[in-house]
Amino acid sequence: MTNAPGRGFAIEEFAARTTKAQAAMAKPGLAGMLLTTEAEVRYFTGFHTLFWQSPTRPWFVFLPADGKPIAIIPEIGADLMGKTWLDDIRTWAAPAPQDDGISLLIDLLSPFAAAGASIGLMKGDETHLRMPLDDFERLSAGLTGLRWNDCTGIVRGLRMVKSQAEIAKLRHICAIGSATFATVPTFAKAGTPLEDVFRAFRREALGQGADDVPYLVGGADQGGYRDVISPPTDRPLQTGDILMLDTGATWDGYFCDFDRNWAVGTADDASRRAYDVLWQATEAGIAAAKPGATCCDLYHAMQGGISKFYDTDGDVGRLGHGLGMQLTEWPSHAVWDDTIIAENMVLTIEPSLSYGAGRIMVHEENILVRASGAELLTTRAAPELPVI
Amino acid sequence: MTNAPGRGFAIEEFAARTTKAQAAMAKPGLAGMLLTTEAEVRYFTGFHTLFWQSPTRPWFVFLPADGKPIAIIPEIGADLMGKTWLDDIRTWAAPAPQDDGISLLIDLLSPFAAAGASIGLMKGDETHLRMPLDDFERLSAGLTGLRWNDCTGIVRGLRMVKSQAEIAKLRHICAIGSATFATVPTFAKAGTPLEDVFRAFRREALGQGADDVPYLVGGADQGGYRDVISPPTDRPLQTGDILMLDTGATWDGYFCDFDRNWAVGTADDASRRAYDVLWQATEAGIAAAKPGATCCDLYHAMQGGISKFYDTDGDVGRLGHGLGMQLTEWPSHAVWDDTIIAENMVLTIEPSLSYGAGRIMVHEENILVRASGAELLTTRAAPELPVI
Repeated sequence: MTNAPGRGFAIEEFAARTTKAQAAMAKPGLAGMLLTTEAEVRYFTGFHTLFWQSPTRPWFVFLPADGKPIAIIPEIGADLMGKTWLDDIRTWAAPAPQDDGISLLIDLLSPFAAAGASIGLMKGDETHLRMPLDDFERLSAGLTGLRWNDCTGIVRGLRMVKSQAEIAKLRHICAIGSATFATVPTFAKAGTPLEDVFRAFRREALGQGADDVPYLVGGADQGGYRDVISPPTDRPLQTGDILMLDTGATWDGYFCDFDRNWAVGTADDASRRAYDVLWQATEAGIAAAKPGATCCDLYHAMQGGISKFYDTDGDVGRLGHGLGMQLTEWPSHAVWDDTIIAENMVLTIEPSLSYGAGRIMVHEENILVRASGAELLTTRAAPELPVI
Repeated sequence: MTNAPGRGFAIEEFAARTTKAQAAMAKPGLAGMLLTTEAEVRYFTGFHTLFWQSPTRPWFVFLPADGKPIAIIPEIGADLMGKTWLDDIRTWAAPAPQDDGISLLIDLLSPFAAAGASIGLMKGDETHLRMPLDDFERLSAGLTGLRWNDCTGIVRGLRMVKSQAEIAKLRHICAIGSATFATVPTFAKAGTPLEDVFRAFRREALGQGADDVPYLVGGADQGGYRDVISPPTDRPLQTGDILMLDTGATWDGYFCDFDRNWAVGTADDASRRAYDVLWQATEAGIAAAKPGATCCDLYHAMQGGISKFYDTDGDVGRLGHGLGMQLTEWPSHAVWDDTIIAENMVLTIEPSLSYGAGRIMVHEENILVRASGAELLTTRAAPELPVI
């Protein structure tokens, strides 16, 4: 495993992100962007807290056309936001359902409304507005003349390409994930309830240095698993099961996201064949992940190998995605995504297939795109279905 | 610790929730409710997955005025949703940015639009719409004549009062949390970096039987901590620190949410006094938590004791809240919340105060409201600031 990099980011990194966003905002003539979601607030400010898990309080950051971002946040976050690079932090005693930051936002944005300006708001794919819809309607009603323009593309374009400091964090958590997967044969055995396997995996990942394991799904069933998003049951592993674990562990707010498959006791032929095809499809995906290729190209590189042997591409809807501050990020390796792969993107390579009787299999690796091609951040899965 | 109750719920429980919701919908004349958020989808269907952590795909459940809920979900969830009590499960190959469920929703809701019906949507306090805002605007534009009415009050009214099966899960995770806190003195010592304390706490909670520890915040500093929402630093605990850990651990999708305070090596007088005042305020809050009292009454019961000694009530904004499927739920123990406390509510009692030089302290217990008054679900904190 790599040594842990430093936590947080230098102020210069937030300044650079902000400057790049402002340059991108100039083209559509945005007077600012209003951000409401955890990843975006953290991306531009460094404000990092699990407190977002409470749905009670909204949090806002306004990124103006010039200068530093402005925080409009509940008082409970003032101390922590005060440790970031921001100077202008406006707070209210939240929760306050009658006025949860709305009058502060109206104060801030009224001059833009009076000027008939356009303000960016993330309205597009993979986004949501994290504030009550009633409050947003009140805010809009209080800002006559203001236009909300979708700015998903601006944020998407920035966040998809990782900085060296982000890459260091991603490399570290991927190494922790790989070290954790290597220990699975020591605690996943016939007779062990699947929920105990999950619990042991989480403890092991924490022991290996993960800050948390927010995401852990998987399945185990005779001759193959049938869904890939379930929480575990207490069913004991049985000889003849195919076991899959898929984890999103975090370090300093950055995720790994990959899986591993095992056969318990003995591997059936159908599962071994599916594994082989997916292992080769992963190889093809890794080889195709070069700057200039599109996500659609990656999809076809993987799917081409799969469709020689299997009719469908599983039910997953895509064969990988971006990775970073969220478990899944833009882009998608899908036939409809023509995003051009660029240096310093961090991606998952995630082919899947169905192989009869409802059984599906998924493989997944995490890669960094370099000028010369993909670099694996994960320790590559074994070329043959491992038996434990 | 209690023995683990069964996982999941009987079908009758989902049917009862649905029937109650439909009765409440009849009063404002709602033809249905469109639900987009994890807790609500799970509450009415039993669909339970961590996959919501991926922001890529929206998930929808429509609760009609009569009959079972209808799921409109990505194909990847079809198998898992098929294990719930629902019969009508409509899927699409998501992600599909050009049409992520929107045409399926328009098909479903068009008859209601044609009739000029009102459909409930959660737009109020502590809610958000979990789908891209652009998609919602497209959906609304495709349903001319339909009215979206806020239905937060209906869902809030149901979810605030827990069933016996929900209470069993909450009792279990609170017991796990209490058992975990009891072990903190074994691993939190002067010289231990705070991030290692956090990691050890998570591992211990998993070992005690928690499924996960999604929320763990806290602080430690000389003579008192200054914020309560930070991730841990690598600063080693020092003699004279006041340490606080606040956890939201889960079992079968239900949270505990409480904290504990300790002095490292030696306790300063100001912190001991703050602790005493908060311990008594907690007693007052527990005593006041009877059916018929309001949340505002609880606030005053706690704040009355605090304000005899301290000027402010900290920066937390309320002195407790509901607890269940989310770390924090309605209602709020705040001066503005006149929600009437009812039997089978599960609540946090969470007084806080500021005691100079930026220092704050928070206490927290979890209670079940019974006809006769509060029952503690957590093992009550020590009456004097414990020294470790």
